[in-house]
Amino acid sequence: MTRTVHLITGGAGFIGSNLVGRLLDMGDGVVAIDNLCRGRAEFVAKYSAHPNFRFFELDSSDVAALRSVLTPDRLPGPITEVWHMAANSDIPAGVADPGIDLRDTFLTTFAILGFMKEAGVPVIRFASSSAIYGDFKDTPIHENLGPLEPISNYGAMKLASEGQIRAAVEAYLQRADIFRFPNVVGVPATHGIIIDLVRKCLQNPKGFEVLGDGTQQKVYLHCDDLLNAMLFIRANATGRYNVFNIASGDDGITVREIAEAVRDRTNPASEIYYGKGNKGWVGDVPRFRYQIGRLAQLGFEPSMGSAQAVRKAVDEIVRQETSK
Amino acid sequence: MTRTVHLITGGAGFIGSNLVGRLLDMGDGVVAIDNLCRGRAEFVAKYSAHPNFRFFELDSSDVAALRSVLTPDRLPGPITEVWHMAANSDIPAGVADPGIDLRDTFLTTFAILGFMKEAGVPVIRFASSSAIYGDFKDTPIHENLGPLEPISNYGAMKLASEGQIRAAVEAYLQRADIFRFPNVVGVPATHGIIIDLVRKCLQNPKGFEVLGDGTQQKVYLHCDDLLNAMLFIRANATGRYNVFNIASGDDGITVREIAEAVRDRTNPASEIYYGKGNKGWVGDVPRFRYQIGRLAQLGFEPSMGSAQAVRKAVDEIVRQETSK
Repeated sequence: MTRTVHLITGGAGFIGSNLVGRLLDMGDGVVAIDNLCRGRAEFVAKYSAHPNFRFFELDSSDVAALRSVLTPDRLPGPITEVWHMAANSDIPAGVADPGIDLRDTFLTTFAILGFMKEAGVPVIRFASSSAIYGDFKDTPIHENLGPLEPISNYGAMKLASEGQIRAAVEAYLQRADIFRFPNVVGVPATHGIIIDLVRKCLQNPKGFEVLGDGTQQKVYLHCDDLLNAMLFIRANATGRYNVFNIASGDDGITVREIAEAVRDRTNPASEIYYGKGNKGWVGDVPRFRYQIGRLAQLGFEPSMGSAQAVRKAVDEIVRQETSK
Repeated sequence: MTRTVHLITGGAGFIGSNLVGRLLDMGDGVVAIDNLCRGRAEFVAKYSAHPNFRFFELDSSDVAALRSVLTPDRLPGPITEVWHMAANSDIPAGVADPGIDLRDTFLTTFAILGFMKEAGVPVIRFASSSAIYGDFKDTPIHENLGPLEPISNYGAMKLASEGQIRAAVEAYLQRADIFRFPNVVGVPATHGIIIDLVRKCLQNPKGFEVLGDGTQQKVYLHCDDLLNAMLFIRANATGRYNVFNIASGDDGITVREIAEAVRDRTNPASEIYYGKGNKGWVGDVPRFRYQIGRLAQLGFEPSMGSAQAVRKAVDEIVRQETSK
């Protein structure tokens, strides 16, 4: 019997490290790699003694390093599928320096595909993003929508990755699952609006500032639901190239509601100071409506809406930040 | 009065070298760069004495080289717009080695944008491709179509380039024109089906082979019409991000018709031997219908249909190949 062995790039990141746990729970072999640029070894330290787990500090954009480190003697078995989760997750940093998204968001994809072609790994599952669509304002965003006009380098390099994967399916891969993530929240949190606001609020109990006027509205998904959705697509989609928006089915919640949730959980007496405009930074999509009919059609429903996901994550992140 | 100075990447290539001539005819300054990997210095040699023209052998993917070579003292004036025509034009080569399209088709775009940001060049015009759409079979392809699923690395890296340009418009460019080329024919020919068939037919007057069964049908545009269309869009489009399919308005012609045109012009007694299948190579789109309503709406009509463009190009290419 061929054993299932997963390679997770970005395996020590927020979502990657949660995925490690879920795949180990399934009894499969798991190889996590991470350059520990944004991920942290401590996020996967609890699995280090697990017989089916391996971790390597390794840059996924370095195909020579992948080739020399991921040798059969070091793995729990031949890799049968790749979960490509490594990427720059700091969108403003990528706007200031496009080289960051080039290297961490796209060249990782390019190198991983090269490694898979050489090693004969047939399946990739890819953490894409709603950012590939650009700013559609109130138009509901479904998977077949065009034109695709990403407004951040991050979105551009996720779109580039999708294109390169699609071409690889034509040439040598057996299957690719493309997961277009919304904003994902949960722990271990490393970046994002909730942890930023929680830290501000904890640092200064009198009050805290919010980028923009607070009307910016987005869809949020809790990491638990995201993992369930990806594993559901893995088990139930049947195509060679499967593209899915993943999100809760609502219209999202505003920055104001998030700030209030943070305040209420942390310090109900805090003031919230709003800025101007409804874009947090260049390349940020202020509001979008995400259609998840394809995922519902496949039979999956997330357990939490945006507001519930954010409230759960606020609670988890406050505990993370205050237990240090 | 500010002078218009164009920088053309791939300026010694087939289309780039024709563009040099057209822009010089307009009285503007023209700086052509080319790594002479597929382009040839002889294609622009006739302009070398022109006071408004400069040529540099330079790789467009090397931002340090761009920065050090394209200094004010070497230019006819500050660059006011970039025509980014450099790319790998050999699609099968890019399928065999994805590194070719990464470097020549995408990293050129990435580096040029970096150079433009540093130098404050506000406008880019980009040679994109119908290959970004993937295989839509009989669905008419318009500019807003989705999903975008390129099936070649070439198409993927053209899509990546579009995305990166779109993000740059959000961040710092004033304007980008995206020209989605069909198959373009004319001289100086360096690659493509017509020159391949002409050479085969000249080498072996008895008969020549054709990849595939000859039913593959594509839209062709003559380079003269392409240049007219790009200059028309430059003059008449008013958006900050202008995307146009450029093509003749017909459904294209088949490989069989091209082979017959080559035979008739070269050696009417030649046999034509067809292969099997209607895909010439992995990543080739066998047939597509290209909508050009947006370009027509702007007021432009190409002067030749696909069949006329191919016949003209066959005549030009036979003369090119027999005058050597």
